[in-house]
Amino acid sequence: MAQHHEASQPMADAQLLSPAVIIGAGLIGASIGCALTQAGVDVRLRDRYKSHALVAAGVGAGTVNNPIASTVKLVVVATPPSTVPDVVQDALNRYRNAVVTDVASVKSPILDELEARGINLDRYVSSHPMAGSQFSGPLTARPRLFVDRTWVIAEGTGTPDSVSRVETLAGLCGSRIVRLNARDHDRAVAEISHMPQLMSSLTAARLADVPPEDLRLAGQGVRDVTRIAASDPGLWRQIITANHTQIAHQLTAIRDDLDALIAHLDDPDEVARLISHGGRGVAALPGKHGRKSVDLDQVVIEIPDAPGALARLFADIQNQGVNIEDLSIEHEIAREVGYLSVAVEANRAAGLRDAMASAGWSLRS
Amino acid sequence: MAQHHEASQPMADAQLLSPAVIIGAGLIGASIGCALTQAGVDVRLRDRYKSHALVAAGVGAGTVNNPIASTVKLVVVATPPSTVPDVVQDALNRYRNAVVTDVASVKSPILDELEARGINLDRYVSSHPMAGSQFSGPLTARPRLFVDRTWVIAEGTGTPDSVSRVETLAGLCGSRIVRLNARDHDRAVAEISHMPQLMSSLTAARLADVPPEDLRLAGQGVRDVTRIAASDPGLWRQIITANHTQIAHQLTAIRDDLDALIAHLDDPDEVARLISHGGRGVAALPGKHGRKSVDLDQVVIEIPDAPGALARLFADIQNQGVNIEDLSIEHEIAREVGYLSVAVEANRAAGLRDAMASAGWSLRS
Repeated sequence: MAQHHEASQPMADAQLLSPAVIIGAGLIGASIGCALTQAGVDVRLRDRYKSHALVAAGVGAGTVNNPIASTVKLVVVATPPSTVPDVVQDALNRYRNAVVTDVASVKSPILDELEARGINLDRYVSSHPMAGSQFSGPLTARPRLFVDRTWVIAEGTGTPDSVSRVETLAGLCGSRIVRLNARDHDRAVAEISHMPQLMSSLTAARLADVPPEDLRLAGQGVRDVTRIAASDPGLWRQIITANHTQIAHQLTAIRDDLDALIAHLDDPDEVARLISHGGRGVAALPGKHGRKSVDLDQVVIEIPDAPGALARLFADIQNQGVNIEDLSIEHEIAREVGYLSVAVEANRAAGLRDAMASAGWSLRS
Repeated sequence: MAQHHEASQPMADAQLLSPAVIIGAGLIGASIGCALTQAGVDVRLRDRYKSHALVAAGVGAGTVNNPIASTVKLVVVATPPSTVPDVVQDALNRYRNAVVTDVASVKSPILDELEARGINLDRYVSSHPMAGSQFSGPLTARPRLFVDRTWVIAEGTGTPDSVSRVETLAGLCGSRIVRLNARDHDRAVAEISHMPQLMSSLTAARLADVPPEDLRLAGQGVRDVTRIAASDPGLWRQIITANHTQIAHQLTAIRDDLDALIAHLDDPDEVARLISHGGRGVAALPGKHGRKSVDLDQVVIEIPDAPGALARLFADIQNQGVNIEDLSIEHEIAREVGYLSVAVEANRAAGLRDAMASAGWSLRS
């Protein structure tokens, strides 16, 4: 019976959303269409350019058939940000029984505009599936674009029933739902998306101006830093200007850091301070799937003064079946002795210490 | 016979370099040691910390046995940049028949310093294998770190015989050799390595100062931009300060761009201009393996007004066995017609056009 329930739940969810209309068959709209279609939802695609809707249908995002307006349960507005208020208002009028959501990257200006128009927003839910790529258009759509990604649903929009329908949408796309008010969302995306996008573009813009033969030396680092700089200017001009106040805070802070760096570029301590500060920023990013860091403990073993013995030491650690979370070398300079510091889950450390000592290795207590 | 030659050439190369001494058993030194050891070279490891040399030996980078100094053919100095002139000078004195090279990321200051000391530099070759990672230390060494990477050999250092021995070294590590004078090298690495490194750190440093809960929303983009910001501050403080003049040019240009951006953050055209400029920079980066772009031609096919037909269209293109290099959608707005633009090798375009026309598809001429 449990199995039956598991199989039927997604089908029930799919019925809750069918038929769904997706307006805007770009990368995001078409990818949502692919995910929903695979989940069993009856998806109808609309786009200003019919060829986009046709191509999206061709890659499995739905069909281009018009639904009966009164039967539509969900409308996803995935058009360029500046068009969203008009398209949302029109959709609320046209599809009288549908919940309407949009997927734009900046939420407050859209919400402010809709509120200023005095529209009843019981059936509107402001949301933001946080996925994308440097590519655009329905040809690059893929059903798994949102799997394990964050889907923000803005607090204070829609009735609980409306919100629940958008939660079903995010769930069928495989996303992790985060509730956030629109202004906090806009600050957060300025920090973790829009500012890094502009830093990537500023870096890449320099490359456009250097002697082409120098670019032969480019390695993986600069390619990673500039990957997202290949993104669509037409989309980003709208995102950045819509969120310019929040982004200005970030960029002004960066300019202060940059001024200080330029002034102290020949001072090793100042340079090291910036690099260390950056390292702390990277470390602050949560693990890819939000994995909590486990409690770790260090087991510190003296490095034997012979290479063959070291290989045996590695083998002895492995034989304990303990997961090595981190590995580093420490020195005791006065005694000219080196130690291998092995980080393991705290509740496995004592066992590993005992086993290694029994096997004859010297441990630092 | 050809087979015999292929098998014996690397062995002959290995003999040319044996025994080789690597001074500095960090990531770079130990990785070179692993590559040379796998190629059959007799590698001897030295490090200020004996435990580093022992660990490097333990991961397969060579042995810690002292060689007879007069028999040493090659010395690779892989110590921190600021120590390189002293270590090179000492190695030239101690190993009288060896060619000495260093692998530091900035070449002119080291060369200037060695020349200022009035040392005979016939046996010294200034070089830079362009690989690394955000990790450091011998525990992260790997023999294939330099495969398909660029190894710069500075022009104007060493006799032709000495240069040839370092070319053998780079060849055994699997690298692509580029000859460049030291000053051009330093300008190029400021542009494509040091500036992007600092931009990554500036971006990541901001993340360290934002509310931790906002970091939950971080996606792949910001992780890519900040990956190299996790690099070793101790190493980078030396690299940046050694090349500060070249880097200052880059950062000053960035500050001007940043000032202009902050002033026009609410102007869509200015924002789009920067993003487009960045896109040109990314496009200017050569393909990963320096692959030359082939001549392409576009075959433009009308998008059929039915999804099923589009799937058949994709299948028909595939059936021609032509590699699709790029694929995009074009519009003819006045006629409300869309086209699929298929980029293929120029010499395959005519054949594809004929085949598609024969199969009944409408082509734009």
